[in-house]
Amino acid sequence: MNSLSPFFNPKSVALVGAAHTEMKLGGVVLRNLLRFKGRVYPVNPKYSELMGIKAYPTGAHIPEAVDLVLIIRPASEVPDILREFRDKTKSVIVMSSGFAEIGETALQEEVRKTGKEMGFRILGPNCMGIFSPRCGLDTFFLPRERLPRPKRGNVAVVSQSGAILSCALTAVKEANTGISKAVGYGNAIDIDECDIFEYLMQDRETSVVVSYVESVGDGRRFVKTARALSESKPLIVLKSGKGASGQAAAYSHTGRLAGRYEVFHSILRQHGIQESSDFDELIEDAKALSYQKRSHGRRVLIITNGGGSGVLAADECMRQGLEVAKLPPDKKERLTGIFPKFYGINNPFDLTAQVNDEDYVTAMDELKDDYDAFLLIALPNVLGITERLSGLIKNIKESVGKPLIFHIPRGGIAGKLTRALEKARVPVYPSPESAVRGLAALLLRDDLPCPGGRGERS
Amino acid sequence: MNSLSPFFNPKSVALVGAAHTEMKLGGVVLRNLLRFKGRVYPVNPKYSELMGIKAYPTGAHIPEAVDLVLIIRPASEVPDILREFRDKTKSVIVMSSGFAEIGETALQEEVRKTGKEMGFRILGPNCMGIFSPRCGLDTFFLPRERLPRPKRGNVAVVSQSGAILSCALTAVKEANTGISKAVGYGNAIDIDECDIFEYLMQDRETSVVVSYVESVGDGRRFVKTARALSESKPLIVLKSGKGASGQAAAYSHTGRLAGRYEVFHSILRQHGIQESSDFDELIEDAKALSYQKRSHGRRVLIITNGGGSGVLAADECMRQGLEVAKLPPDKKERLTGIFPKFYGINNPFDLTAQVNDEDYVTAMDELKDDYDAFLLIALPNVLGITERLSGLIKNIKESVGKPLIFHIPRGGIAGKLTRALEKARVPVYPSPESAVRGLAALLLRDDLPCPGGRGERS
Repeated sequence: MNSLSPFFNPKSVALVGAAHTEMKLGGVVLRNLLRFKGRVYPVNPKYSELMGIKAYPTGAHIPEAVDLVLIIRPASEVPDILREFRDKTKSVIVMSSGFAEIGETALQEEVRKTGKEMGFRILGPNCMGIFSPRCGLDTFFLPRERLPRPKRGNVAVVSQSGAILSCALTAVKEANTGISKAVGYGNAIDIDECDIFEYLMQDRETSVVVSYVESVGDGRRFVKTARALSESKPLIVLKSGKGASGQAAAYSHTGRLAGRYEVFHSILRQHGIQESSDFDELIEDAKALSYQKRSHGRRVLIITNGGGSGVLAADECMRQGLEVAKLPPDKKERLTGIFPKFYGINNPFDLTAQVNDEDYVTAMDELKDDYDAFLLIALPNVLGITERLSGLIKNIKESVGKPLIFHIPRGGIAGKLTRALEKARVPVYPSPESAVRGLAALLLRDDLPCPGGRGERS
Repeated sequence: MNSLSPFFNPKSVALVGAAHTEMKLGGVVLRNLLRFKGRVYPVNPKYSELMGIKAYPTGAHIPEAVDLVLIIRPASEVPDILREFRDKTKSVIVMSSGFAEIGETALQEEVRKTGKEMGFRILGPNCMGIFSPRCGLDTFFLPRERLPRPKRGNVAVVSQSGAILSCALTAVKEANTGISKAVGYGNAIDIDECDIFEYLMQDRETSVVVSYVESVGDGRRFVKTARALSESKPLIVLKSGKGASGQAAAYSHTGRLAGRYEVFHSILRQHGIQESSDFDELIEDAKALSYQKRSHGRRVLIITNGGGSGVLAADECMRQGLEVAKLPPDKKERLTGIFPKFYGINNPFDLTAQVNDEDYVTAMDELKDDYDAFLLIALPNVLGITERLSGLIKNIKESVGKPLIFHIPRGGIAGKLTRALEKARVPVYPSPESAVRGLAALLLRDDLPCPGGRGERS
């Protein structure tokens, strides 16, 4: 058993700083814990019961050892609270802020030392903690009305920053995909991204890991662990603190130094660790990887019902190092016989505004063995595009067996079509370029150490 | 009067190819023309009346000269239709496709020559035509249920491609802004982007021009006209057909050659013409420019309630050549006395998850004279961010008098807050990086020939 298991799958949880109202952070967390599938022990000396659960004045009063202790009390109280749990737990999340991020390095060091003396693993301080839908654990101090949680799924999010973690959860939900584990690890006095990577490596629920990193404690270990994780499942890193101003900001945010970005970037690339250049790209990549499996190759077929959108997609393919290869001459001839003469039987394949849903399938059937990946563009504002399209795609998807992504701009029937396609595990993107970037994240290429080919953009 | 005035502000319109049902493109256009504020003459030999309007068998039967003729009949009929309107009009839009884009160059040349003989100005062929909300003209063959039209506003969209034009309209609507004129000019046998730029230069309704260009007929004229337009109001160009595959796609799409992109790009830059690197950026830029005026400078203050989001924004500032300058020491000292000690009184200015709406105003009041532009980040999943924030910002916006943009990630109260802020002319972006790019589009810098500093990304 990995030493982080109690953090992601505890049977019992104590919450020090539990409150009776959601006007307090400790109340928000307690409310979330009502969904937890194990035992909950609120700790608060002023109440004998909170939200219908028996409360305890101190940790020492809890009648059993607990798998996980959550602390959301003022920073100065944290060392004593840790001592209260001597021999009562092995795993603690300190959500409280007020440590190195505001210059209180001595207090943070005291927490670290105390935890070590007690034999605890500590997540935090100054962190959001953990959202683990499988066991219903949710330590986030953001109410569900304010931050709707995504469904259970296969994406793990690992973020030093709570802000980025919450934005990532919102984006994952919007992408109609789901979360296996989400972790905000804050100041990282003990558990850091590497420990979490090691845990996720063997987590069967997780098939893609998204990691927002501001600073790295031990660079060598980071690269080693990230590389090992990358070899077992897709990992996408978004490193911030890239410039002088970003670095200063990252330091005041978590109290860890951000380091020289260029060095970090080139090391990642060299070790085949995939990097996104900004937040949107991180989510675009994660979406594709959560829906479909990676495969080898770089030859992309673009089928579109809007010429301009096809051209923009072809441009982005070039930027991503993908090849918009010509149709094989025999196939071109055959398709010219099948389709109206004003269709553009090329790559991009232009079905024009006169398109019908079936045209995509006809073209795919003919060409599926000639390309490594497929970008289908459906502008939903012409009458020939209907909701039937998703069913047709669902039927051919298995026989294609390669990355297949849609660009459907927002508006009209786009919402319905998108949900139906995504239910069939075909991700949909709102712009031609974002769709191509999603496709690039799925393509392993022999000419590049890692998918995406993002070095040039960042 | 500019010779394009009849295209954008006609008093009377004839539609050749008008149909009785929206199952036909000519019916969709006729339905749209019911909103036109002038006289409409449907032309169709099979009907004496269409959608409640008297119809005419040919153009020659129309009892007056008409300002604008729309043709949506098969390509081969177009030359004869033009002749029908001899001395009856000066302005024609040929929406029909089936010309150079599918190799029918001789037919296209015949249309061009015939138009010239008749003394017509021609828009198209193979085009969407014009949406001009002021007079209610809408020649797009896409039904409103499929392509909801944006409200009247100050953004002009000029696009060779109908697909990109329709995507841009959807995006403009989503950005809560509006359209002054939208033009899809297709194969451009007569009227091209330059003619339209010249018209828009003197159009008072238009304060920003967005132009999607696949190919340019006369490069020298393009640069001259685009430059002149740029000097009178912001123009943002998205040039596609950048790579070999994109160029081939652009050719088969409109039958004009796309040219070598690198040359085009460096010429644009040299002449101070602003360029976007992809569709999303085009819309991000247009949004900022439609909401606020450009001003000089590069010093940006970032105020955030989420540390990580501030760091990502600072990174993007660096990439955009903007400076996240430190707080003046005296201001820093004063603000440290005002705010809780765990706030990060730096740039980015970190109000933390303990934020209150008023904090943004307090910080802005103190620092508004020390920076050239302001990026405010409000993660709406903490309780301290409420809908009151938009009112507070509205009140201080005038006294700031410089570019001021928000990043608010989607979810929770973000929708309501966004609509209220945008009503107060403060644009809101869903990611930190897109917000910074929007801000960059508003900043004129002495070190760069044009705003945005995008050369490196594309």
